Amino acid sequence: MFRIRRVNGARPVRVLSVPEIHARRRAALRSGLRAAELEALLVTNLLNVRYLTGFTGSNAALLVGADEEDGAGDKHLATLFCTDGRYDTQSAAQVPDLRRLIERPCDLALAGAAADGGARRLGFESHHVTVDGLTALTGQARGCELVRAPGLVERLRAVKDDAEVEALRMACSAADAALADLLEQGGIAPGRTELEVGRDLESRMRDHGAHGPSFESIVATGANSAVPHHRPTPAVLRQGDLLKLDFGALVDGYHSDMTRTVVIGEPAGWQRELYELVAAAQAAGRAALRPGAEVRDVDAAARSVIEDAGYGDRFVHGLGHGVGLEIHEAPMLSRLGEGRLSPGMTVTVEPGVYLAGRGGVRIEDTLVVRDGAPELLTLTTKQLIVV
Amino acid sequence: MFRIRRVNGARPVRVLSVPEIHARRRAALRSGLRAAELEALLVTNLLNVRYLTGFTGSNAALLVGADEEDGAGDKHLATLFCTDGRYDTQSAAQVPDLRRLIERPCDLALAGAAADGGARRLGFESHHVTVDGLTALTGQARGCELVRAPGLVERLRAVKDDAEVEALRMACSAADAALADLLEQGGIAPGRTELEVGRDLESRMRDHGAHGPSFESIVATGANSAVPHHRPTPAVLRQGDLLKLDFGALVDGYHSDMTRTVVIGEPAGWQRELYELVAAAQAAGRAALRPGAEVRDVDAAARSVIEDAGYGDRFVHGLGHGVGLEIHEAPMLSRLGEGRLSPGMTVTVEPGVYLAGRGGVRIEDTLVVRDGAPELLTLTTKQLIVV
Repeated sequence: MFRIRRVNGARPVRVLSVPEIHARRRAALRSGLRAAELEALLVTNLLNVRYLTGFTGSNAALLVGADEEDGAGDKHLATLFCTDGRYDTQSAAQVPDLRRLIERPCDLALAGAAADGGARRLGFESHHVTVDGLTALTGQARGCELVRAPGLVERLRAVKDDAEVEALRMACSAADAALADLLEQGGIAPGRTELEVGRDLESRMRDHGAHGPSFESIVATGANSAVPHHRPTPAVLRQGDLLKLDFGALVDGYHSDMTRTVVIGEPAGWQRELYELVAAAQAAGRAALRPGAEVRDVDAAARSVIEDAGYGDRFVHGLGHGVGLEIHEAPMLSRLGEGRLSPGMTVTVEPGVYLAGRGGVRIEDTLVVRDGAPELLTLTTKQLIVV
Repeated sequence: MFRIRRVNGARPVRVLSVPEIHARRRAALRSGLRAAELEALLVTNLLNVRYLTGFTGSNAALLVGADEEDGAGDKHLATLFCTDGRYDTQSAAQVPDLRRLIERPCDLALAGAAADGGARRLGFESHHVTVDGLTALTGQARGCELVRAPGLVERLRAVKDDAEVEALRMACSAADAALADLLEQGGIAPGRTELEVGRDLESRMRDHGAHGPSFESIVATGANSAVPHHRPTPAVLRQGDLLKLDFGALVDGYHSDMTRTVVIGEPAGWQRELYELVAAAQAAGRAALRPGAEVRDVDAAARSVIEDAGYGDRFVHGLGHGVGLEIHEAPMLSRLGEGRLSPGMTVTVEPGVYLAGRGGVRIEDTLVVRDGAPELLTLTTKQLIVV
């Protein structure tokens, strides 16, 4: 869903119509199918179906023919969308440009349709279809060979088009605005609890146009800030605490992701040093975000700053991840990551150092890889915020 | 996490300690493993890991040996928990009773550990492991045979223990209380939007102890109420509308699920008739919830009421579903469902009739199957509410 609207002063941009966007994505996928010598791909990952059609319900599958234009007459391997009866009305509105089938289970119905259409090589999402699911599909596909075709749609999704970047920009903007309001209106103060701050932040993101939070907000104060994925508790914010806020907004299905760590009251020397170290690592990571860079080299650019300071073993996670229709998606920026960056990839850069029992600092932005410098989507300052 | 606490006046009940609860569940699973002649099961479904250990993070796996007691010395097929470095501290607190491995990816690490321990038949969750995932596991498991073992944990989860029913009761209670507040304080009134009502309802559930909504609330007014899974929009509530509210609360990971349809202003004759029809079908469905009943017969008990009234084709979904750590889980009460009910199963009963362009009615409760009559967990009246 790529309705263009204003969120918090973001500029509306002119984009393709919604059906044009989805048709263009399916055309890119068909190139991939022909390269893999597949007659069709059975798309069962629901987010991939959404990406290719705009459908937002909870059950659907899509059969994409390699050669046929969508809806070109009644040829059997034209693109065919399937959902169940609950979504008949909704899918008619959201997917007006494709032939629709109302049946359940969708994957089996479409495998049968592909076989009926004479397909001999049908790709399936082997990174998504379960072992038992493949057995069931094989039963429906009859003579048709089911061919592993992992990640074809995810590869497209890793590079965002303009409509996607616009949705991500709005999501990041809602999160920025919520944090600005929270700070300005005294929402971070001794005596409040982590739970209260988290709920306040989420409510303010909705005020700024978010559909909701993009994941369960992390609000971690004092020693809790040393737990990378801490869940908010009734713990009370106190003078002298490091407070880590890792949160994001959901707009039109797209997830923003940002972390800021603030200090409540005058920072201690060790807190300021820790902050400056992580900020330097984060800047190094951002600077390494260039088209063509190996993802593991981006991780290394930030990690080496922390390692050189002797805290390598306190940075216990990867540097970042792609973000879009999922909060974590390709590419992964980590020591074990593989592949190179391309323009349009949208990733987080989020180094952290965690000192058990004392506190931790993480600083995270969401950025778009561009020719030249990356485009920053999360605009909250990375200067140390003291409240 | 089964902390016992008061929510909205619910009685605290005495239950096993948290480690005892998880140990008991793992013991039940081990019986299943021995019956299937497996030496161990690799549990990769994260909710199953949570059910068996209490761990609430976003990445983990569990190796459960068939014969060894947990932590019994250093035998290799004792139960072994694995997560990654982000969750070292959290898992030490949540899973104090099991041996832990901090490694990534968890599933491959545990398959390797099973092979190192000399396992020859290792079960895996073939309904959850993907086709590509099995290839990777096979590479790690070396000589050890990977055996399909679908649904062993889900079968246990379908029958709730006391701690689970208590969490579900608290979740249902939070939803009941939120709706009561909303009605009492004029939150459903002409001029408000679907989005406002949804947000209001979700906020009130949190006020009553919910961690958050258990799924995206459905608030559908007027003709929108004829869309079974309508997402809230800026549509305005008007006099004469049917307003369908399908929502639930999340408490300690457990999901409540309830639907009520109210009328704004004096009900028209057709609205009252439609409501009475669905209410009669819902009562018939509830009455059919008996241990030993075939799930498809429960569906039929409610569906026949609607079919007899000539609206069979307007009831476009199954009658209900199990509810627990997932909002939809086993057993499915539908025409194609298989199996029988057992005491302790917790299910929804939610018939609906949808008249496109006019409006729809759905009435849904969450209930526990008991010897004798089922126990109702959602206590809001099913008399037609007129606001």
